[in-house]
Amino acid sequence: MTAETPVSLWPDPDALGTVTDLYQLTMMAGYAAAGIDQSDATFELFVRKLPPNRSYMIFAGLEQAVGTLLGLRFSDEQVEGIRHWPVFSAIDPTWFDSLKQFRFTGDVWSVPEGSVVFANEPLLRVTAPLAQAQLVETILLASLGYPTLVASKASRIVEAARGRSVVDFGARRGHGPQAGFLNARASYLAGFSATSHVEAARRLQIPAVGTMAHAWVQSFGDEPTAFATFARLFPRATTLLVDTYDIEQGVRNAAAIEPAIQAIRIDSGDLVAASKSARAILDSLDRTGVKILVSNDLDENKIAELLDAGAPIDAFGVGTELITSRDAPAISMVYKLVELDGVGRIKKSAGKRTYPMAKQVYRSTTSAGKFAGDRVTRADESADGTSLLVPVIQSGRLVGNLPGLDAIKEYCRAQRESLPDRFRQIEADTSYPLDYSEALEAEAVKLGLK
Amino acid sequence: MTAETPVSLWPDPDALGTVTDLYQLTMMAGYAAAGIDQSDATFELFVRKLPPNRSYMIFAGLEQAVGTLLGLRFSDEQVEGIRHWPVFSAIDPTWFDSLKQFRFTGDVWSVPEGSVVFANEPLLRVTAPLAQAQLVETILLASLGYPTLVASKASRIVEAARGRSVVDFGARRGHGPQAGFLNARASYLAGFSATSHVEAARRLQIPAVGTMAHAWVQSFGDEPTAFATFARLFPRATTLLVDTYDIEQGVRNAAAIEPAIQAIRIDSGDLVAASKSARAILDSLDRTGVKILVSNDLDENKIAELLDAGAPIDAFGVGTELITSRDAPAISMVYKLVELDGVGRIKKSAGKRTYPMAKQVYRSTTSAGKFAGDRVTRADESADGTSLLVPVIQSGRLVGNLPGLDAIKEYCRAQRESLPDRFRQIEADTSYPLDYSEALEAEAVKLGLK
Repeated sequence: MTAETPVSLWPDPDALGTVTDLYQLTMMAGYAAAGIDQSDATFELFVRKLPPNRSYMIFAGLEQAVGTLLGLRFSDEQVEGIRHWPVFSAIDPTWFDSLKQFRFTGDVWSVPEGSVVFANEPLLRVTAPLAQAQLVETILLASLGYPTLVASKASRIVEAARGRSVVDFGARRGHGPQAGFLNARASYLAGFSATSHVEAARRLQIPAVGTMAHAWVQSFGDEPTAFATFARLFPRATTLLVDTYDIEQGVRNAAAIEPAIQAIRIDSGDLVAASKSARAILDSLDRTGVKILVSNDLDENKIAELLDAGAPIDAFGVGTELITSRDAPAISMVYKLVELDGVGRIKKSAGKRTYPMAKQVYRSTTSAGKFAGDRVTRADESADGTSLLVPVIQSGRLVGNLPGLDAIKEYCRAQRESLPDRFRQIEADTSYPLDYSEALEAEAVKLGLK
Repeated sequence: MTAETPVSLWPDPDALGTVTDLYQLTMMAGYAAAGIDQSDATFELFVRKLPPNRSYMIFAGLEQAVGTLLGLRFSDEQVEGIRHWPVFSAIDPTWFDSLKQFRFTGDVWSVPEGSVVFANEPLLRVTAPLAQAQLVETILLASLGYPTLVASKASRIVEAARGRSVVDFGARRGHGPQAGFLNARASYLAGFSATSHVEAARRLQIPAVGTMAHAWVQSFGDEPTAFATFARLFPRATTLLVDTYDIEQGVRNAAAIEPAIQAIRIDSGDLVAASKSARAILDSLDRTGVKILVSNDLDENKIAELLDAGAPIDAFGVGTELITSRDAPAISMVYKLVELDGVGRIKKSAGKRTYPMAKQVYRSTTSAGKFAGDRVTRADESADGTSLLVPVIQSGRLVGNLPGLDAIKEYCRAQRESLPDRFRQIEADTSYPLDYSEALEAEAVKLGLK
């Protein structure tokens, strides 16, 4: 077999039914054959353990997850493509036809996007016919896990920058081209001020930011010509990259531009020394208003070190460390059956136990309005504090409108500021108080979990 | 702003022009305004440094990168969307119109997909009008970097499994839903035998594999019923998950099924003890043909440990560690201008120097047919050994056909087997011999790089 036309690895967004693990389909078929596919099932999505170096997480990706659920379909081509796979040899052909009519008709409750959340509390709950609720596991985890990872990393980076601007330069380092989109959105809602990703900026109305590559400077005979040309063409957004050849000469060349440019960018070397030297040169040449942007494998630790060392930096461009969540590139987000036809379900696997029954989370606050602790309860209990899970989809339809991205960003900021300081440090307290209600513990005991 | 309909984060595969960093567009516009957009430019893509724990890389993602280049377009909606961005205030409106006619018309040379490659050698070379060659940087890096990461990780995992089967279970842990596709393809070509990803299996004709989730077992009143039902419905692919409640009892329940099932799966706990115990139980019940598949955060190190400890495991399911390339989730792949209108270009930035001129790589082999070392030369030089970069796109058209996925997989296997053993260990020699030709060194000196 040769590929005359390269096979696209962009799935059809209107037919994401097969963006799933095979076992979801075999189980769906099996539930139907066993006559339990319409049983009333509740699954819950939660994170087993905070990722390393994290004291909280920012829940993100809900809007796209909801869009995916509401639009989940199988194309005829997909159904015909899998119908004759050997694994399905004993499955009734009418089951395949039923896939062509698939619609998600269930309910979803979720914590709002941008929420500060912790391990071992339900973040999203699906109640639907068993076959539907089972199918969506893979794509829900793939849709929510990554944005939550990025938003959680971004939140730490924003804190480390102490009020200075942080912008997303990650697109080229994502795990495939789609990751760049998801990363731009998740980092913006968690406090980044702009992205270099053109399509994300356009479609999501995020401020777009860009400087120049070394190739621009290399493409002209000399640096002064390269700089002057750029400044003339982009008078409202001139950030000149000064380290292609010699940084100090680059800063002088940038300072010489009339009228004064907006900023310079340094992308290599010792950023403390280079930014101090650049600031001194700029100031000595009456360019006190020219900002300094730095980049080059920055993360929250390096940003904190730069600021601790007194580096006169105005803005940080962050790429690889953000988009790959490099120190914690995976999250132990899982989606587990907890209730079937009103009866609690558990699993006892070593290190992977799950509590039965549909749940709610109540968050209590101190008199100063700071988060004091979370309590996980049965969904039909009440407890002190604010309940976190709210209805998002009812009988397969959106409940009201989802918040816009700027509203989510503002909500996220307020959430982070409600966290006690000890959870907001770079090396933070990771033991936010969380417990399970007596009624929930009693359910677990009843089913033999304890 | 509220979102009544969730915004999709799936870009339009027929209009990927804006899946790029803003600076590529500003530079494109600037090159046009400066009258150098049609200059004959050569950029090269290479990896600065092997990722941690890697002694070689497997180059992957070429088919999709080529497809993206050949189909790269801007939609009218995209062009109108960015036309009035403040950054473009001084740009001639006709430049925006020219985007609507954008076509990639350049040449691409590349090492074949599935090649064993190393740091600091060109893997792909683009020669095109400067504006075109500049634009494609972001999407080329995003299309090639991730598959290369995954294939490189997968190759290590395949080696660690010493001939046993390894299958991809990563879909839910990818950095967004698209990563699952890319991961399935890249791991298969590097030696994995199957994937759980339904759409990847369907579209790329990769063998599909699946077992069952704990939810299946939990959904029936008892484990024997759950197992018997599954075995009846999926007689040609029955792998029973035995650890939902008690593993040993689970193995006994699985062994009791008539006729004998194909395999059991263990997904938690001490996999050495559990697999030994399971093997003993299965054998004692005359189920010597039932295979044991294990999963649970496996990587090459854990697989090697399991086999060193004599665990009687037949197949490994690998997810998170593979799809996130967890120990090395980023790769320092870059794309640099090396030649413009026949003149070499360099950059001198600290730690980021680049050599001038279009290049070729020659690989020499020992008399036993093993790789002996690589030499990077000027593209117009010749040297001993086999040249690695071959033409793939000429004047915007595919040169011949690309190889099919199974051919790439076979080529990759042969490449890996041509590596001397010392580079194939888990803790391997990372100093594969690579040097630059005298002519190339002389060019660098001439331009003041040294």
